[in-house]
This record gives sequence, structure tokens and C-alpha cells, in this order.
Amino acid sequence: MLATIEQTVQPHIGSGKVADYIPALAAVDPNQFGMAVALKDGSVHCLGDAAKPFSIQSISKVFTLSMTLRLMGAELWKRVGREPSGSGFNSIVQLEYECGIPRNPLINAGAIVVTDHLVNDGDCDTMIDQLVARLRHLAQDEAIAIDDEVARSEAAAGARNRALANFMASYGNMTNPVEDTLSAYFRHCAIAMSCRQLARAALYLAFDGCDPVTGEQIITSSNCRRINAVMMTCGHYDNSGDFAFRIGLPGKSGVGGGILVIAPTFGAIAVWSPGLNDAGTSTVGSIALESLVEQTGWSVFV
Amino acid sequence: MLATIEQTVQPHIGSGKVADYIPALAAVDPNQFGMAVALKDGSVHCLGDAAKPFSIQSISKVFTLSMTLRLMGAELWKRVGREPSGSGFNSIVQLEYECGIPRNPLINAGAIVVTDHLVNDGDCDTMIDQLVARLRHLAQDEAIAIDDEVARSEAAAGARNRALANFMASYGNMTNPVEDTLSAYFRHCAIAMSCRQLARAALYLAFDGCDPVTGEQIITSSNCRRINAVMMTCGHYDNSGDFAFRIGLPGKSGVGGGILVIAPTFGAIAVWSPGLNDAGTSTVGSIALESLVEQTGWSVFV
Amino acid sequence: MLATIEQTVQPHIGSGKVADYIPALAAVDPNQFGMAVALKDGSVHCLGDAAKPFSIQSISKVFTLSMTLRLMGAELWKRVGREPSGSGFNSIVQLEYECGIPRNPLINAGAIVVTDHLVNDGDCDTMIDQLVARLRHLAQDEAIAIDDEVARSEAAAGARNRALANFMASYGNMTNPVEDTLSAYFRHCAIAMSCRQLARAALYLAFDGCDPVTGEQIITSSNCRRINAVMMTCGHYDNSGDFAFRIGLPGKSGVGGGILVIAPTFGAIAVWSPGLNDAGTSTVGSIALESLVEQTGWSVFV
Amino acid sequence: MLATIEQTVQPHIGSGKVADYIPALAAVDPNQFGMAVALKDGSVHCLGDAAKPFSIQSISKVFTLSMTLRLMGAELWKRVGREPSGSGFNSIVQLEYECGIPRNPLINAGAIVVTDHLVNDGDCDTMIDQLVARLRHLAQDEAIAIDDEVARSEAAAGARNRALANFMASYGNMTNPVEDTLSAYFRHCAIAMSCRQLARAALYLAFDGCDPVTGEQIITSSNCRRINAVMMTCGHYDNSGDFAFRIGLPGKSGVGGGILVIAPTFGAIAVWSPGLNDAGTSTVGSIALESLVEQTGWSVFV
Repeated sequence: MLATIEQTVQPHIGSGKVADYIPALAAVDPNQFGMAVALKDGSVHCLGDAAKPFSIQSISKVFTLSMTLRLMGAELWKRVGREPSGSGFNSIVQLEYECGIPRNPLINAGAIVVTDHLVNDGDCDTMIDQLVARLRHLAQDEAIAIDDEVARSEAAAGARNRALANFMASYGNMTNPVEDTLSAYFRHCAIAMSCRQLARAALYLAFDGCDPVTGEQIITSSNCRRINAVMMTCGHYDNSGDFAFRIGLPGKSGVGGGILVIAPTFGAIAVWSPGLNDAGTSTVGSIALESLVEQTGWSVFV
Repeated sequence: MLATIEQTVQPHIGSGKVADYIPALAAVDPNQFGMAVALKDGSVHCLGDAAKPFSIQSISKVFTLSMTLRLMGAELWKRVGREPSGSGFNSIVQLEYECGIPRNPLINAGAIVVTDHLVNDGDCDTMIDQLVARLRHLAQDEAIAIDDEVARSEAAAGARNRALANFMASYGNMTNPVEDTLSAYFRHCAIAMSCRQLARAALYLAFDGCDPVTGEQIITSSNCRRINAVMMTCGHYDNSGDFAFRIGLPGKSGVGGGILVIAPTFGAIAVWSPGLNDAGTSTVGSIALESLVEQTGWSVFV
Repeated sequence: MLATIEQTVQPHIGSGKVADYIPALAAVDPNQFGMAVALKDGSVHCLGDAAKPFSIQSISKVFTLSMTLRLMGAELWKRVGREPSGSGFNSIVQLEYECGIPRNPLINAGAIVVTDHLVNDGDCDTMIDQLVARLRHLAQDEAIAIDDEVARSEAAAGARNRALANFMASYGNMTNPVEDTLSAYFRHCAIAMSCRQLARAALYLAFDGCDPVTGEQIITSSNCRRINAVMMTCGHYDNSGDFAFRIGLPGKSGVGGGILVIAPTFGAIAVWSPGLNDAGTSTVGSIALESLVEQTGWSVFV
Repeated sequence: MLATIEQTVQPHIGSGKVADYIPALAAVDPNQFGMAVALKDGSVHCLGDAAKPFSIQSISKVFTLSMTLRLMGAELWKRVGREPSGSGFNSIVQLEYECGIPRNPLINAGAIVVTDHLVNDGDCDTMIDQLVARLRHLAQDEAIAIDDEVARSEAAAGARNRALANFMASYGNMTNPVEDTLSAYFRHCAIAMSCRQLARAALYLAFDGCDPVTGEQIITSSNCRRINAVMMTCGHYDNSGDFAFRIGLPGKSGVGGGILVIAPTFGAIAVWSPGLNDAGTSTVGSIALESLVEQTGWSVFV
């Protein structure tokens, strides 16, 4: 199966446009491609640059959402919705029409609220330390870390996210000082992980919240299904409908070129290739996932 | 299972608000509830008023979409998108921002385009006759028919849909005379079916496009998955994310109080109760479906 | 003064883009230019093609507004606002956000409401006859008439206006059958007048509602000021601010290439040249008006 | 004349709602009313609390605009438009649709750009000092100063303006550090002036840019007319059309309850009463201005 995927993506390697809003991302070699498929037995099947760390960016939103639901429960849903936005990843229009409540936790505004909620009355550094520790535990790999250069660049280039956060603050939907929450947000977006680490870390989302290898119940079955539902309807900004149409699995893409996809009862898949399509999703990554789904029949819509 | 559902919904019967934009719907007794679950072997398990015909309204959009994809193929996607709209069922705002291309085939504007595409260079009466014949065939029940009074009322109260259709016409996205297409649209929304008929007619959508009883391949596996994907992300207007979050199955609701839900590899479920929530989805129907999913574990996100 | 204007516009004659949404307008020779300045003593000073009739299009909205305020009074303002729209002449977005109440009487939606209000419980033909009679009286010229070919073309190409009218009808803001009101609307937009006729007919708007030649009080002083105010803030769709900035006089432009401008206490000016700028205002006409204002100092902002 | 105005407003004193977004404004006694009319000869006719300083808030935008056009010329118009916004004073929606270019210099976003442009490569403190010095010179009164408590409160409660500024920065439409520009913006909004000072300081705007007493040409005739035009079409946010309709003079309102109005060739009028209508304009101030215009006939639309 992986061999077929490799053949399928080969002619496309390097296509798409690498994110260039910060130097650290703009400098990434577009001719890279990696894929990892983690299965129930804990085996992780790899292709290409699957062991190479990349900036997971918005994929981190899935883990902050999961951690928030686990630690703080359903209170979150008073501050953020769970509907597709019908607009771009950093749109502010909807926030004005809906009084500072972002549409869902996977667009920037929503993820900032999730981060703010997670910090709660603790401090940002502790929260970020806990998140990284959690990811190391989930991936069973201590090598996961924040890319400090990316984090600094994000903060320096963060005017749009600063606008979103201040806008929500003006509606009373920020509990911590705006710059504190943004500092945590920029750092978790700057976490670097490999496909192998990512697929392994997310495996519990394919098994109703339970890590199938360790047997640890990471989150409740109910919250696991909900996270998958939100990924399905909102995981790719204003391209979510098309992703569901073509791939048929819940997933989350990041502008670093990574895509995380969950195949319930089967496993978790991470793919990475830096070139993006117009919607900000990895071009080659999408092709690889289409090939995977075609071969495995892992659509949830069968 | 059905007994538990019956107990669960009992205290809620009559809640919600019956659609009142036309007299024929406003006059419906809110204290009705029916449910039917069609399984792979063709058995249909019924509860309450499952045999009573009701106005399927927007649920008809699933069948016109399916028929269009079967007869005309992927050309449709040049005229309509497949993204959630992020706005109400009859919103015209998005059409102006996106040059007359509706966001998806399950909002009013998109369904009007589907109908227009399906009429093609034939005539509306023939198209409607074929649709009704198709539904009778799928449900294996000759008793399905259009409620002429509802159809006439829809046409008389159809200013908003007339605005949508003319607006799209002004962008060149209507091929037939606007009133012809609308006439067909109003009639297919006025089809009356029972829960039993509806669940049976949609059974093929749970089995990759193949009727599991007759073995007839109604549509391709690929198109079947796509229809389910569109139902999942767009089936309940601006409430689709919440429906996926709570129920976890692709579905389509109608203002007549019906909801059709597909549980891939398991079966098709139709539920009906006229009282609607603020988003235009049956209040009691939603409760019944939550109970069903809780008992069966039929979420696609497990 | 007129000689200087003639020299100023000469190099620009033919620039801009002629309206092409209906054949009758698309066929107009762009190399035409006319201007007429009507003064307090009734003298009308002319330049170029000032005696040639052209399609006044949206300039007719000033006269239907004036007639409605005269005959029906302030009731109109319950159905239409008097704020600039911040969007294009035929935008429907604002109507959805503001429940079918158009922003002002000089955008298409608002002018359709004015026409609908003016028809009242009479019939459209009578209303149109009265309007034409009124214009003949005001211009003291019996040669004014509707261009039937243009009226028919407008009706045939009227999908967008049909969408606006039906949309407002869906909010209860149409009292007559939509097609009746539109029929009247398309006809008054198709009135043909020359610059000479137009300037003379509008002279009363420069003298607090009183025709300075005949002494007839056409409308109240108060309503006259209000019409001028609405022209100033809303007369050129989403280009009104720029027109006020550059010309400094209340005015109304039409896609036929005409512009009517009022210089309070001085006179009324009509200019015509078919080529339009991006905002739908006559390119050469605007240049001529800038030259006029520069020479005369007729800005209201002095 | 002033006696009649006094009688007219008397029963309304105290009506409207005092701005309460910062304590310093919320604490203002609503039962205050002042008015000053400055005429060509330099005489200033006063009524009520005309000598009492109040927070001029957005009225300062007129003076920063004037100063910017005087010092930096037409370059400003590359960074800000001159069209009515069709939305509220602090709306961010338009900025997203129009790529960070605010619609006009009198809404918050536009005024922030003006301030940013005025600071240029100098520093904020110098710019603010120059502005205050300029106002003292124009009003011929050294007692004008910034209310530091208001300035600090504005900065503390400035999340919405911070969002606007950062949003524009993300489109490259800020040249100074966001917080620097905002610091200057919050301070000029916190300038305290009396009606008497305000009317005198703005007198040049009624006389084509020339102070009629000193003979000093403050700005060019052309820029003076343009400022008046922008005040007419944009001076009261989404209430500008109605203000033109009712008052018929260019003006600018502030949430401190002040309104500045220009009567070209006659004089400048300042009115103050803290209670605001829904659009954020002084309720009693508007009534006073209507009475003034009725008595004097000072509408520009006569």
C-alpha cells in the first residue's frame, strides 16, 4: 500500500506553495514528503521523511482541544461554537456578527480561546510545559520540542492573531492578558513533530479515546467522537467540505504542510509535504491521503 | 432499543415550533412522532406514526442530488460547491460574495441549482414524474405522491426562493426559465412520505450505493460516499456542525419535521416530529436520534 | 465657462466603458457629450449634445422620490432608510442583514420600494403616465417619453432587480405584485430625456422646492433639502463619498451616462457622456462637473 | 435665536444614554448642555455650559485629518478611503473585505491610520504636543489640554481599537509600532475642550480654510471643502445620512456628547450634552442643532 502511495505522489513532489509569512517556514525545502500510519497494535508504518520533525502549526489545535476537554470539560462550549465557519482560517468577520464567539475550536480565533481557557488561572509557561509533556507521553517519544525560532517568528508576525485576540477581548471572551495567551498560542503552533510521532500521539482518537497499545483512556469516548466530528466539519477551514468529500475522514491540516487524519477503528495517519494548495492544505499530502483511502476503503462514509 | 427511545422522547412530544410559513404545514398536529430503522436485510423497524406520510421538504434534496449525480455526473460541481455555508438555509449573502455559485447542494440555493441541472433540456413535469417514480422504486411502495396543496402553497409563499433563483440567474447560473425550475423545486419539496418509506428508500446510502436487498447498484460507491460527506458537513444548514457533534451520522433535516440519517454499513433511519428547534431541525427527532446513537454506538466517529 | 469645460473634456471624449447589460445601451456611441446648465431666470446654457435624448436610468429615482414625498409624505421612511449603503448599486447583502429594508431610495432596492409605494393601490400604467406627465410639466417640454425598447430590454435582463424585489417581498416590504412594481420600475428607468430637459425639470431642487421661473412650489422646502441631502450622501452608490469630495454638490448618476447635479441657489446641471468609470458614473461627465465647480465655486462646502 | 434653542432643548435635558465604556465618561453628569456659535467676526455666542471643558473624543479626528492634509498632503488617500462605511464606528468587517484600507478618516480605523500617518517618522509625544499647540492656536486659548485620566482609561479599555490597528498592521497599513500609534490616538481622543473653544478652533472650516479673524490660511481651500465633504458623508458613522437629512450641515460627533458643525460662509457651531442616542450622537445636541438650522436656514441644501 505504501509503495503505491509513493509511486502516486512521486510526480507531484515539490508542487504547491510553501507558507512564507515567516522566514523559518519559507526556508523549508518543498521537495520533502513523509507519511506514517499508526495501527491498533502500535506499529507505525512509515514512508519517506516520516522521521523528520516539521512545524505542526494548526495540528496542535487538536491536542489543545483534547487537553482542554479532558481537564476542563464542557464549559469550553460557552466560549466557542462547533460550526464550520464558511470563511478563511483567520477571518474576523464572523466574530463581529457573532459577538466575539468564534465558530469552532479549529480556526485561529477558536484555538486562541481554547488556549486561553486551558491556561485558566495558571500561567502560560506551565501550560505549555504540560502540553509538550503530554505529547511526549502520547507519542512515547521524549524528543518532541518547541522550535523556538518559529515561536519567535510567529510572535513577531502575529498582527492578525493579535487582532483576533483583542477583538474577542473587547467582547469579554479572553480571561488572561491577551499577550500571555498569544504567547502560549504561538508556542504550541511552533511545536515540531515528525509524522511518526504525530500518528502515534493521535492514535487514541481512532479508538474511542483509548490508547490501544497501553490501554490508557486518554479522553472519554464521548469527547473523542466529538473531536473527530469537529475535525470532520471544521478541520480544514473553508476547505473542510471538500476534504470530507474527497478523503472522507476527520482530519486537521497545518500550514507547515502536515495533515493528521483519523480512521476510526483502524488507526491514525500523519502526512507531511510543505507545498500548500490555495486553501492552505498540503497538496502532496492530500494526494497521498486520497491514494490511502482508495486502497484501504477507510472512509467513514462507506 | 425502540422501546427505550419511545420512553426517552415521550416527555418531549409536542415541544418545538411547527413551521408556519404556509398554512398546510402550520396546521399539522405537533403531537406526532414516528421513527423507522431500515436494516441490511430489508426489515424496517417502526415506532409511533412511522407509517404516516408527512411533507419531506428539504430531505428531497438528498434524492435530487443522488439522481443528478447518477444521471449527469460530476458536471454539477461546476455550478454548486460542497462547503458548509456558515449561514442560514435561505441566506443570499454568500451568493453575492461568491458570484452566484451556492456553497452546497443542500441549502435552498444549491438545491435549486441541482433541480435546474436535473431538468436540463427536458421539462419539469417529466423530471418530477421521474423523481416520484424513482422514490417509489427505491421505497418499493407505489403510494408515494406529491401533496398538491403544499406544492401550491410553497409556490405562493416562495418569494425568498424566487429571489435566490433570480439572483443566481443574474450570474448565469440558471439554465431553465426561473419559474419552471422553481415549479419543479416546489413540487419535490412537497413530496409526502412516511418514515417507513423514507428509511427504506435511502437504504442504499448506507451500503455504498447498493440496495442490500435487491442488490441493485443505485449509484456508484464513490458518489454514495460523497453524498454522505455532503450530508455530514452541510445537511442541517448552520446547525450541521452541532448535529455531527451530537449525532455523529450524516443526515438531512426538513422543516416538515423529518430527519433522514444514514448509518454506513448498518442502515438508514427516518424520524419525524413536527416541532422544530431554532435551527429548523425537529426537536423530538433529534432527541430520538441521540438515544438511538447512544444505544447502538452507530457514530461514524467511533 | 462652457468653452473652458469643452476644452477640458475634449481629450477625454470616448473614455470609460459604455453599459452593456442590455443591447439598447451597449449600442450607444461613446463619443457623445452634452451638458446643460439651467439658471434661476429659466435660461438653459448648453454644450455639445445637450438636446439629444438619452436613457436617464437611475436619475429617474430622484423624480420618483420627489413625487412620492409630495403625494404620500413621510410614510415612505418606514419602508426605506436614508443612509449610504457602503456597497454596490444592486447589492442584496444589506437587505438580508437589515430585514428587507433598503438603505436609501437611490440604490436599486430602495428605488423599487419607492416605485411600489408610489403605485400604492392604483395601477402601474397610471402611475407611469403621471410621472411622464409630471416630467413634461417640470421641463416644460412635451417631447419627453419612455424608450419602449429599453424598457423591454430592462425587463428581459432584470433578474437581479427581480431578485431584490422578491427578497423584499419575502420580508413583507412590497405591497403590489412584484412583477407589477418591476414593470413600472423598468419603465421609469427607460425614460429618455436630454440634458436640457433634465436640467430644466430639476431646477426646483436648487430653489428650495420652488420653480424659480413659474413660482410653482413643487415640493416643500423641507422635502427639497432632504432630497438634496440624500443625493449628497447616497446619489452615486458606493462612490458617493468620492463624488462629494471631488464635486461637492448633491447629484445622481445613471448608467446611461447621465449625471444630474444641483447647485442650491444657483441652478441645476445635467451632463451626459456614455462611457462609465468603475463605479458606474460617467467618466467625462465627472470631468466636466469638476471643471464647472472649479470655475464657479459652486461647492456647497465653501 | 439662542433663547429659542434653550427653550426647545429644556424638556429634553438629561435624555439619552451617557457613554459608559470607561469610568471617566460614565461619571459625567448627563444634565449638562452647552452651545457655542462662532461667527465670521470672531464673536462667539454662548448658551449654558459653553465654557465647560468636555472630552471631545472623535471630534479630534477632524483636527488630525486637517493637520495631516496640511503637513503631508494627498499621500494619505492611499491609506484610507473617503466613502461612508455603511457600518458602525468600530466595525472590522469592512477592513477584511477591503484588505486593511479603512473606508474613511472619521471611523475609528481610519482615524488610527491618520494618526499613524501624522506621526510619520517622528515620535508620538511630539506629534501630540504639536496637535495640542495647534488647537490652542486655532482657539486662541492656551487652556486646552489632554485629560490624562481619560487617556489612560481609553488605553486600558482599548481592546477593540487595538484589534483594528493590529488588523490593519497585518495588511501592512501601519508604519509605526501599533502601540505607539494607539498611544497617540488614545491621547488625542482624550483632549478636553469647551464648546466655545471648539467652535472658535474650527471657524476656518466655514471660510474655505482661512481664519476670518486673523486672516491666516490654515489649510487650502480645496482641502477645506474636502474635509467638509467627508464630514457630511461620514461624520456620524452609520448615522451620517440621517444627520445630513435632518441637519443638512457637515459635522462630527463624539461619544463625549459633543457635536461640531460647520455652516459654510456663516460660522462654526459646537454643542455638548452627554446623553447619546443609539447611534452614539448627542440626543439633546441634535435637537439644538435642528432648532438652530430651522431658525437660521443654514442648511447647505437650500
